[in-house]
Amino acid sequence: MIILSCGPALHSKEDEPHLGELVFVGLGLNDEKGMSLTGLEEAKSADTIFAELYTNLLLDFSIKRLESLCGNKITLLKRNDLEEKNGEAVLQAAEAGKTVLFVPGDPLIATTHITLRLAAEKANIRTRIVHGASIISAAIGLSGLHNYKFGKSVTIPFPDNYSETPYEVINQNRKAGLHTLCLLDIDTERQRYMTVRDSLETLLKIEKKRKQKAVTKTSLAVGIARAGSKTPIVKADYTQRLLNQDFGGPPYCLLVPAELHFMEA
Amino acid sequence: MIILSCGPALHSKEDEPHLGELVFVGLGLNDEKGMSLTGLEEAKSADTIFAELYTNLLLDFSIKRLESLCGNKITLLKRNDLEEKNGEAVLQAAEAGKTVLFVPGDPLIATTHITLRLAAEKANIRTRIVHGASIISAAIGLSGLHNYKFGKSVTIPFPDNYSETPYEVINQNRKAGLHTLCLLDIDTERQRYMTVRDSLETLLKIEKKRKQKAVTKTSLAVGIARAGSKTPIVKADYTQRLLNQDFGGPPYCLLVPAELHFMEA
Repeated sequence: MIILSCGPALHSKEDEPHLGELVFVGLGLNDEKGMSLTGLEEAKSADTIFAELYTNLLLDFSIKRLESLCGNKITLLKRNDLEEKNGEAVLQAAEAGKTVLFVPGDPLIATTHITLRLAAEKANIRTRIVHGASIISAAIGLSGLHNYKFGKSVTIPFPDNYSETPYEVINQNRKAGLHTLCLLDIDTERQRYMTVRDSLETLLKIEKKRKQKAVTKTSLAVGIARAGSKTPIVKADYTQRLLNQDFGGPPYCLLVPAELHFMEA
Repeated sequence: MIILSCGPALHSKEDEPHLGELVFVGLGLNDEKGMSLTGLEEAKSADTIFAELYTNLLLDFSIKRLESLCGNKITLLKRNDLEEKNGEAVLQAAEAGKTVLFVPGDPLIATTHITLRLAAEKANIRTRIVHGASIISAAIGLSGLHNYKFGKSVTIPFPDNYSETPYEVINQNRKAGLHTLCLLDIDTERQRYMTVRDSLETLLKIEKKRKQKAVTKTSLAVGIARAGSKTPIVKADYTQRLLNQDFGGPPYCLLVPAELHFMEA
């Protein structure tokens, strides 16, 4: 039997004493107040606190306010710290005592967190997860579309990472009568965000070439901006009209419905 | 253009003054401390607070503790109040002042919440959403499987609501190389919960009849219990062995992977 993750009673190396513990705390979608009350309790009792903010954009986040809530200094991690240095600093702290790592959204949706968690378990550090709101369920909920009608989801990359995969995923889903959630690429370090317009232009360009009618000028799409913030926007329209809608600031995502039979206002 | 949902600046009837407001606050996965700090702030400034707890199980929840956190009395709603009386009491309160409705998980994943939200907007009551952790992203995250490899999700109903749909969904997903998240039926009012064992037995029974090898005794599955609690369990094994595993108390869900190529401990 493979125990992928577990509570205190079922650790994979349960006979060995644990060195320390690493608690992943999800910050949800918008700012430091997106964490749960449990997350705050965990941070208040931690010896060391880290935060990574590059895997997603938290629009109204302030590290100073987070520090003041937790009553403790927080070390901000860059992509480099987790992906090249393999989270060395986090693992060292977690070997010495209780360590909290704040992450945007819900932990373990980003591959980086899964990798770090496995490294911790391998080093005999117990891990726990305090879940947070995720763009996956938030976007589906805000759209009014039914969760069980969504197929595979996909990320639409920036044009310089051109890929026809998103178009293919939408096409396959539509053929099966399913909606597609498209996450739009972000580069938080360069503050660059794929917009609803960019994503639709990319898809229509592929449509012109492949002509499979997965996304056409007169098919429907739903654009979402700032899910989880105080100013979320959700607009459904024909793609040619949605292209010219003003969604305000990032982050964005796009939903491509299979057919229009959802509950409309 | 159809505006499905929006922030203060973009209400569908923006020229008319609003009567009141209805804020849906997600309680996350386990207890009252699963709500975000924003959710608590909203509740503290509400005139009226409701909670519905039947759409999902919050294992360690206490209404008394939630009332004490919010500093206000909370009216508990039953299925009947929302589904037969169409949330009349909630809408009346929201017409008169700021009203918070606490719900398990992330709001708007349950159809009941979508229906109530549309009724509120129709009655010219502004609605807002404070997102919470959802079983959808929590289960995917805990499994260690990659989010973008999941196909359509499905609920496996109690045997008295026999359906072959879950088997078909798993079969279609597997053919496309995709994992399936199976939510397991719950009846919180009768405290009845579909277990991992029940769900596997149901699927294997359908397999015996249809022989499409979507789920066999030697195929792999991942059982999850109490995601988001302090004692989550995640076990991956061959279905015939998973059947006899002890997962402890509810709630449960089941993941059926397409193939075994996920990162194992």
